Amino acid sequence: MRREGEIALPFDPAERIEAGLCFIGHIRSPWAKGTAPKNLRAARETRQGARVELDPAYAPALAGLEVGQAIQLMYWVDRGERDLLVQNPAHGRGLRGTFALRSPVRPNPIALGTVVITSLDPETGVIGIDATDAWDGTPVLDIKPWIDTVDVPPGWRPDG
Amino acid sequence: MRREGEIALPFDPAERIEAGLCFIGHIRSPWAKGTAPKNLRAARETRQGARVELDPAYAPALAGLEVGQAIQLMYWVDRGERDLLVQNPAHGRGLRGTFALRSPVRPNPIALGTVVITSLDPETGVIGIDATDAWDGTPVLDIKPWIDTVDVPPGWRPDG
Repeated sequence: MRREGEIALPFDPAERIEAGLCFIGHIRSPWAKGTAPKNLRAARETRQGARVELDPAYAPALAGLEVGQAIQLMYWVDRGERDLLVQNPAHGRGLRGTFALRSPVRPNPIALGTVVITSLDPETGVIGIDATDAWDGTPVLDIKPWIDTVDVPPGWRPDG
Repeated sequence: MRREGEIALPFDPAERIEAGLCFIGHIRSPWAKGTAPKNLRAARETRQGARVELDPAYAPALAGLEVGQAIQLMYWVDRGERDLLVQNPAHGRGLRGTFALRSPVRPNPIALGTVVITSLDPETGVIGIDATDAWDGTPVLDIKPWIDTVDVPPGWRPDG
């Protein structure tokens, strides 16, 4: 289904696969299709936490992370549409290129959330996080430490 | 090759593929194996820019991005090792879990750089960026707008 003005690629990226991903675990959240907050900021405002349940085989890879630390959580949000170049978001500000949007509809539907660790069980591989906009059951691809010197653009300052 | 104390998974994530990626373009940089800066901060200190050359089919997806804006650049850094859980980085601070490191050696070798757009050609799909730690020819997976309200952890303030 295309909204007015939307432009698609002449091919489906899902049919030009050049590398493969494994799922290292899943997100457990209060959200499903239709109830999820529209972005991470809105998710945080609900004050509902969530958790990441890793495949227990990956639990040793958490060594060195700590409660209170921010992480970059990468998760797979494939909605079956990967070919849209220009989108007309339902609640957006008109037509916009896919690479100027955080929409899950993109050639490689990898979502990124900067979240704070609220609990950590290095035995079972379960990580509490302060918020997520992901649907319950969303596959997880990667966890990285958030590092201000590389994850904040040079010269950026908060308002106020 | 394993360094002292390193721990690997009992399986190779590259043999448990559950989703597929397409390459939307490549990074053109001054760097190769052995010459690349160790991270994005060090790359920025070299004052050498770089560029992203998209497959021209994706160029319309840049609409709405602007020079001076920060983007989240995702790129594929597969070194052939995806099974390390605990690593002993060459220049690091001892043993550390993979998810507490930004190392390219990880189950899904997706790297993330927050970079600033220095030029933009929406016809050819070529984007100048202020810095990268990626080797010349690195495949690109995604471009997203960097948005302070979702990409900075709550309450974070710069030093000084």
